[in-house]
Amino acid sequence: MIGAVKVISGTAHPELAQDICTCLGVDICRSTVVRFSNENMLVQIDENVREADVFVIQPSCPPVSDGIIELLMTIDALKHASAGRITAVVPYFPYARSDKKDRPRISITARLMADLLQTSGADRILTMNLHSPQVQGFFRIPADQLQAAPILCDYLRETRDLTNHVLVAGDVGESKDVGHYADRLDLPIAIVDKRRHGDDEVARAVNLIGDVKGKIALIVDDEVASGGTLVEAARFVLERGALAVEACVVHPVLSGRAIERIEASPIRQLVVTDTIPLREEAKRCKRIRQLSIAGLLAETMLRISNEDSVSSLFME
Amino acid sequence: MIGAVKVISGTAHPELAQDICTCLGVDICRSTVVRFSNENMLVQIDENVREADVFVIQPSCPPVSDGIIELLMTIDALKHASAGRITAVVPYFPYARSDKKDRPRISITARLMADLLQTSGADRILTMNLHSPQVQGFFRIPADQLQAAPILCDYLRETRDLTNHVLVAGDVGESKDVGHYADRLDLPIAIVDKRRHGDDEVARAVNLIGDVKGKIALIVDDEVASGGTLVEAARFVLERGALAVEACVVHPVLSGRAIERIEASPIRQLVVTDTIPLREEAKRCKRIRQLSIAGLLAETMLRISNEDSVSSLFME
Amino acid sequence: MIGAVKVISGTAHPELAQDICTCLGVDICRSTVVRFSNENMLVQIDENVREADVFVIQPSCPPVSDGIIELLMTIDALKHASAGRITAVVPYFPYARSDKKDRPRISITARLMADLLQTSGADRILTMNLHSPQVQGFFRIPADQLQAAPILCDYLRETRDLTNHVLVAGDVGESKDVGHYADRLDLPIAIVDKRRHGDDEVARAVNLIGDVKGKIALIVDDEVASGGTLVEAARFVLERGALAVEACVVHPVLSGRAIERIEASPIRQLVVTDTIPLREEAKRCKRIRQLSIAGLLAETMLRISNEDSVSSLFME
Amino acid sequence: MIGAVKVISGTAHPELAQDICTCLGVDICRSTVVRFSNENMLVQIDENVREADVFVIQPSCPPVSDGIIELLMTIDALKHASAGRITAVVPYFPYARSDKKDRPRISITARLMADLLQTSGADRILTMNLHSPQVQGFFRIPADQLQAAPILCDYLRETRDLTNHVLVAGDVGESKDVGHYADRLDLPIAIVDKRRHGDDEVARAVNLIGDVKGKIALIVDDEVASGGTLVEAARFVLERGALAVEACVVHPVLSGRAIERIEASPIRQLVVTDTIPLREEAKRCKRIRQLSIAGLLAETMLRISNEDSVSSLFME
Amino acid sequence: MIGAVKVISGTAHPELAQDICTCLGVDICRSTVVRFSNENMLVQIDENVREADVFVIQPSCPPVSDGIIELLMTIDALKHASAGRITAVVPYFPYARSDKKDRPRISITARLMADLLQTSGADRILTMNLHSPQVQGFFRIPADQLQAAPILCDYLRETRDLTNHVLVAGDVGESKDVGHYADRLDLPIAIVDKRRHGDDEVARAVNLIGDVKGKIALIVDDEVASGGTLVEAARFVLERGALAVEACVVHPVLSGRAIERIEASPIRQLVVTDTIPLREEAKRCKRIRQLSIAGLLAETMLRISNEDSVSSLFME
Amino acid sequence: MIGAVKVISGTAHPELAQDICTCLGVDICRSTVVRFSNENMLVQIDENVREADVFVIQPSCPPVSDGIIELLMTIDALKHASAGRITAVVPYFPYARSDKKDRPRISITARLMADLLQTSGADRILTMNLHSPQVQGFFRIPADQLQAAPILCDYLRETRDLTNHVLVAGDVGESKDVGHYADRLDLPIAIVDKRRHGDDEVARAVNLIGDVKGKIALIVDDEVASGGTLVEAARFVLERGALAVEACVVHPVLSGRAIERIEASPIRQLVVTDTIPLREEAKRCKRIRQLSIAGLLAETMLRISNEDSVSSLFME
Repeated sequence: MIGAVKVISGTAHPELAQDICTCLGVDICRSTVVRFSNENMLVQIDENVREADVFVIQPSCPPVSDGIIELLMTIDALKHASAGRITAVVPYFPYARSDKKDRPRISITARLMADLLQTSGADRILTMNLHSPQVQGFFRIPADQLQAAPILCDYLRETRDLTNHVLVAGDVGESKDVGHYADRLDLPIAIVDKRRHGDDEVARAVNLIGDVKGKIALIVDDEVASGGTLVEAARFVLERGALAVEACVVHPVLSGRAIERIEASPIRQLVVTDTIPLREEAKRCKRIRQLSIAGLLAETMLRISNEDSVSSLFME
Repeated sequence: MIGAVKVISGTAHPELAQDICTCLGVDICRSTVVRFSNENMLVQIDENVREADVFVIQPSCPPVSDGIIELLMTIDALKHASAGRITAVVPYFPYARSDKKDRPRISITARLMADLLQTSGADRILTMNLHSPQVQGFFRIPADQLQAAPILCDYLRETRDLTNHVLVAGDVGESKDVGHYADRLDLPIAIVDKRRHGDDEVARAVNLIGDVKGKIALIVDDEVASGGTLVEAARFVLERGALAVEACVVHPVLSGRAIERIEASPIRQLVVTDTIPLREEAKRCKRIRQLSIAGLLAETMLRISNEDSVSSLFME
Repeated sequence: MIGAVKVISGTAHPELAQDICTCLGVDICRSTVVRFSNENMLVQIDENVREADVFVIQPSCPPVSDGIIELLMTIDALKHASAGRITAVVPYFPYARSDKKDRPRISITARLMADLLQTSGADRILTMNLHSPQVQGFFRIPADQLQAAPILCDYLRETRDLTNHVLVAGDVGESKDVGHYADRLDLPIAIVDKRRHGDDEVARAVNLIGDVKGKIALIVDDEVASGGTLVEAARFVLERGALAVEACVVHPVLSGRAIERIEASPIRQLVVTDTIPLREEAKRCKRIRQLSIAGLLAETMLRISNEDSVSSLFME
Repeated sequence: MIGAVKVISGTAHPELAQDICTCLGVDICRSTVVRFSNENMLVQIDENVREADVFVIQPSCPPVSDGIIELLMTIDALKHASAGRITAVVPYFPYARSDKKDRPRISITARLMADLLQTSGADRILTMNLHSPQVQGFFRIPADQLQAAPILCDYLRETRDLTNHVLVAGDVGESKDVGHYADRLDLPIAIVDKRRHGDDEVARAVNLIGDVKGKIALIVDDEVASGGTLVEAARFVLERGALAVEACVVHPVLSGRAIERIEASPIRQLVVTDTIPLREEAKRCKRIRQLSIAGLLAETMLRISNEDSVSSLFME
Repeated sequence: MIGAVKVISGTAHPELAQDICTCLGVDICRSTVVRFSNENMLVQIDENVREADVFVIQPSCPPVSDGIIELLMTIDALKHASAGRITAVVPYFPYARSDKKDRPRISITARLMADLLQTSGADRILTMNLHSPQVQGFFRIPADQLQAAPILCDYLRETRDLTNHVLVAGDVGESKDVGHYADRLDLPIAIVDKRRHGDDEVARAVNLIGDVKGKIALIVDDEVASGGTLVEAARFVLERGALAVEACVVHPVLSGRAIERIEASPIRQLVVTDTIPLREEAKRCKRIRQLSIAGLLAETMLRISNEDSVSSLFME
Repeated sequence: MIGAVKVISGTAHPELAQDICTCLGVDICRSTVVRFSNENMLVQIDENVREADVFVIQPSCPPVSDGIIELLMTIDALKHASAGRITAVVPYFPYARSDKKDRPRISITARLMADLLQTSGADRILTMNLHSPQVQGFFRIPADQLQAAPILCDYLRETRDLTNHVLVAGDVGESKDVGHYADRLDLPIAIVDKRRHGDDEVARAVNLIGDVKGKIALIVDDEVASGGTLVEAARFVLERGALAVEACVVHPVLSGRAIERIEASPIRQLVVTDTIPLREEAKRCKRIRQLSIAGLLAETMLRISNEDSVSSLFME
């Protein structure tokens, strides 16, 4: 039997940590992160955690490398402080898309991240919507992966009439997710077919597999980074006769000029979750609707701590 | 610098091992596998292998569990016999499709297999066409993954006029491979959309995303086991107006009543490789055309041994 | 403190698992093993096991390799399902006789099996009558080894007058066990002396060390596989003047033509335990008397779970 | 025997890598580091490195966390690309001063860094002037630590008359280094005695142990970060009667307002090495004299590669 | 939650173990150490320890190597006896001064000792006054390090007027400890400056940094072995004008002719602790005053067992 | 390919190391072992060993614990000095008889020793006549075990007429070895049957299994420690009618009063090897004849270094 639950918030997403603690009815465990002028950090846990059941909340978001190092240092500090069990709660997993060796002599960095977390002393991982479900196999420690689809689908059903919608995947190679939504929402599917031509390295949308004519296209993806792929797909389906375009994405990375691009695009709404904090610019963007996964994480953490089944509720 | 190359053939696929050795111009390293009446095996290496660069050829094929245990025992025997480097050559990786946790409380067995191989003493893995490219990340030892697509595409181009062909993937969730063929052969894509309804656990083809009318459908997949999915897809595309159906699959598992099913199906040719040996029944089946990957493996092994680049040739 | 006891039965010996659960007054934890047409298995645990004290019952018996892989997959599934402690209950340990390197370049497979179990996630092992007591040293995880001798000796004393018996070991190199019985039953010992001559690889009984004349020979061994050694020893002691022959063996492997051989032999009774299930043929054989070790295993599991001493009861 | 030497430069200090390669007469091995808009990096090695003896040059300097993650990814990529031996050349080791647990519940991050490097696949470490020599014990892989003292002392002797100098350590707890210089230069020592009073957390110089009156004080330290400690010590020895102040420091971190502070201080020269690149501002600062350790590193790498003794030359 | 506390005494320091148990109000857990004529030992735990929270008391003292092997065997026996958590209580850590590679091709034996303890199965370490605080970073398991300074300083303040005392460190390189005492006792510091000349390997005191004239010198160090360094420093400060000399040392190794040397020295009192037992000769020496750290260890063990903060009390 | 052979002699058996080097025609690699007054040791390798093929000769002999710690330190020093491959040559393995858990809560110390050697950095083990062949399975690194039987049997055949000899094992549980001699020398076997009665813990010889009347008894064993068992067996076979008694033992531990006992016994010759050095007293004992295994070890080391088969020569 593990000790009392302690929730530590890294510096990545204190709002999410606070929301989770509110759901759980506990205070955030006090800890300090100092960053010196030489950029080195000092992480200190300010409460006794001996044998406690500690959850560290730290999704991957800018500054990305600092966030990873801080997380590893926090886990290391907890281990040497004799924490009973350390669960890294990483709703958006760092380098999740770096999950295969699609070029010679590169690192499968998602696997490296899994190894670094284990080396630093993590006993468990709790994450959400990994880019590939196979990434769960990168861990030798127990890893729970939650799905945001139920929350997103509930929202979609409650807020609109879906009878004329079609789900769209932006790439043949990344069309697995769209299947989950299709099953849940009972909607047809279309897929953008991108090809590489000649020495041109960049893949371009050349065909649309399936049909969007006269329908509202709902593009689904696991993450939106620079927004380029998403906006290109939106324009492509409109050219192919879609009436309107909406998008539903779990992890709102929204880096670089993403907000600017989305504002200038035909996407009329982008539904995301709060696995990552939104930048101020994104919070102000009216097309973006953010749904909270804090309750889902809180319920899961409670079940982990109480030794109840996690799958029975969330993995249907 | 590693010592001389030694090639050991497990009992799974001696023909492939012999073909590789012929390409390499070496003899198979002598070894013995005895199976006692109590089903226990004894694996003995019959030549000195101290510091040698040993490759063990053992794809996963029936009897599957015996093949795995035999491979682990062989590697263990080689390690304790002071082999210099041990490469498990596993063209068809065991449990490659068990690569994610899509039900609660199951084993991601492909990862377990990777760990068992490392525990037994494997220094490297050489495999072909993993079901998901992410499986490469299950290894902490260097793992080279070869692709049969160049061999298969060359054959297709040489043996038929492809101008009226369309590539077909049998499932939205498994459509990544079809993209590789599409890029190489410059062909359009169609995807069978399978859904689960009500309490019925089995997914059924309900839509076809994309168009096959008046075209020759070429179904591509990484493996064919019982043949059920393949034959269902074949019938489905014919119903949707395809002129004819062909299939191209890397790993010919062809278990259970697969041959019978294929003979009774509208598939006019099934192109496969020899990563797995064909059963007698399959060898006699005129619709099956088997292409050899022995030369590809031999060339790769030579490059590994000579410390040449593998990616420069095969991974384009 | 570990959580509640859960007993999982692999497919190897469900009767033993049920008998143990009856002794413990618990239900078997629900789990499913599916075997697909391609021989791959799917192991799923059908109940929540978070932090539970799980015992997996799986002795090594045909199909041997399938049983090993299934056990490793079950343990892996349990680990990733967050089981609190996983004890592999393997009354007959796989490859227990492959415990030394008595030929060049072979695997000490019992050690390999120990490593594979640890890699898959086993926290403890519970086994019985290892061929050599040294095999316990192959484990870095706690390993409890029980002895069936008390159960067997009690039965022998209760069912016959032992005053004219002599204990017989079938080989000089394997005579350690006979000493334990000799101490318990206070009986004399004789040992069959087997030698290898010339290039003949097979050892043959050539001498009898000690005396069996006019006595009832009771051959003892840890396992009987094909029955060849046992029957040869039986005939040999009769030739040397024994009045009758009986045998007492812990693990009834009884593979190949063992039953046929025993029926045709002068052995009037063969006492065994149920560490391995008897084949139908063996169950019908009237010369075989099977004693249950379910109560012993159940009592031990209870003590492990209650943190009581195991040695105080069973290892005398 | 390891293969040919390959030198890879991370993005931290390309000048040093180039200087080393010039000494060695080799070209830098081509590699690419891409940083995407979401701050994720892609590291790719652009040449075949199978079985090569690879050295990765990457001292710790801003952006510190990015540099660490990049180094780990590079090593991981090299391992999976089958490099023969990977030596991380880290002249200034990250978090080298985080080498003890001087507060409750913190991470000994230098140890964590050592573990992360080993997890990612480093076979060896080559570093310089660790803050504590004990940090070498944080590695289980061979770690060579070079000393810059010979280079620094040679320069000091060649450029000035040292007969009226006194060496000064800025803190009692950090006075080990000053002893090495004292032995080499045959100079007396003085030590600033800093104390903490009341609840005031910051230690202040309160005494000077030893004598600096009428002498030129030469403050020595392993690193200068914000410059605060160094400048405080300089002022303190002047107050205690020193004629002038100079400083000699191995690692020129010079973070935050360090250059500004030094320009405003009484330190007339600060001698440093190029284990870390100087910022533009620092390069322009006339009081700073930078000595190169490229030749020392190149000679050491050559000896490692040639299997010659490293200690015989450099560790005197 | 870990089980009940069990305290096992190795043969190194049974008095300390008994004193700790008296503080805790528990009996020593029965165990036996037999030493055979061939010098091999047998360690047996004579009580059930399943899931117990076991502390093994074994500081490093002569016979040193026997003590280390006995400790490793005890931990190994406990692990295989299913102890719940094993804490090695090693107040004086073996080879603590062998913490750096100050000569070529030597072992950093303190690190090796840390690894051996972890290999044998230790889950935690509890030690006191490591020679360097960095040694704590040699452990990957939680390691608590206690400081004897509070006990020693309390004693010094209670037994003498310290207004005319000066603290003395015997070597520039080992002056870190003296700072801790200086802060606590608010006393000035002087440091003996030892140098090596020519080929003479032995360092000799040549200067005194700071001032001792007319003061009572209180030499502080972490351990006293042969006494040579301590007595040399005592004579040196007297020559430099000290009125009298006292010494305060945590670990009283007092090997070889140490007692004889101290009796013949000007040191009027040597205050030590009982981390190591005193030899009879040392117990009789009136100049030695031994203070007990049993209460400190007992309180810490209680806090570890009760999951209370250790740092809050002892590490101020 | 591993580098040049370097042979390091620990302090345990310099004569054996010298004899091996003479056979190999190489000089012993210079190294130093210093033992300080506090019993701590310092091991330093005095030659460059980078990438060399290093063999460390250190059988287990008094002082046993010092010898083990010295061996671990030497291996650790070699690893950090970048030795290419480290083979621990341990002709008599420490704690080889502590190979099973024959009492509750003890350590299987031979396994612990194997783990400690691996932790310290040994890459290979070379040993002779392990008490049980299963101990070879305690290693995960390659372990070669040589047999002295060929040398001993050759000597016996050359020095006496064996036609009237009988081989005697001193215990039923330890009679495996006698079988090897019996096969080689074609001699009959007799075994002393020892039993424990009542609460009397000590086993006593009560029966002789087999016949020695009128024959010369040749007692064989793997080691002789205090000599008690050997001398008891000698007296017992004489009582049972043996004409004379001789003994043949591989490892001459000869601890305590062993020589005295043997001088007073009826054993007319004790043939041993030099896996362990003889004490002066034993060297003077005329009944002891010591045969050298230096040539056997040298030949094996040469074969290991040259990557030739070891088994082909020695393991027949």
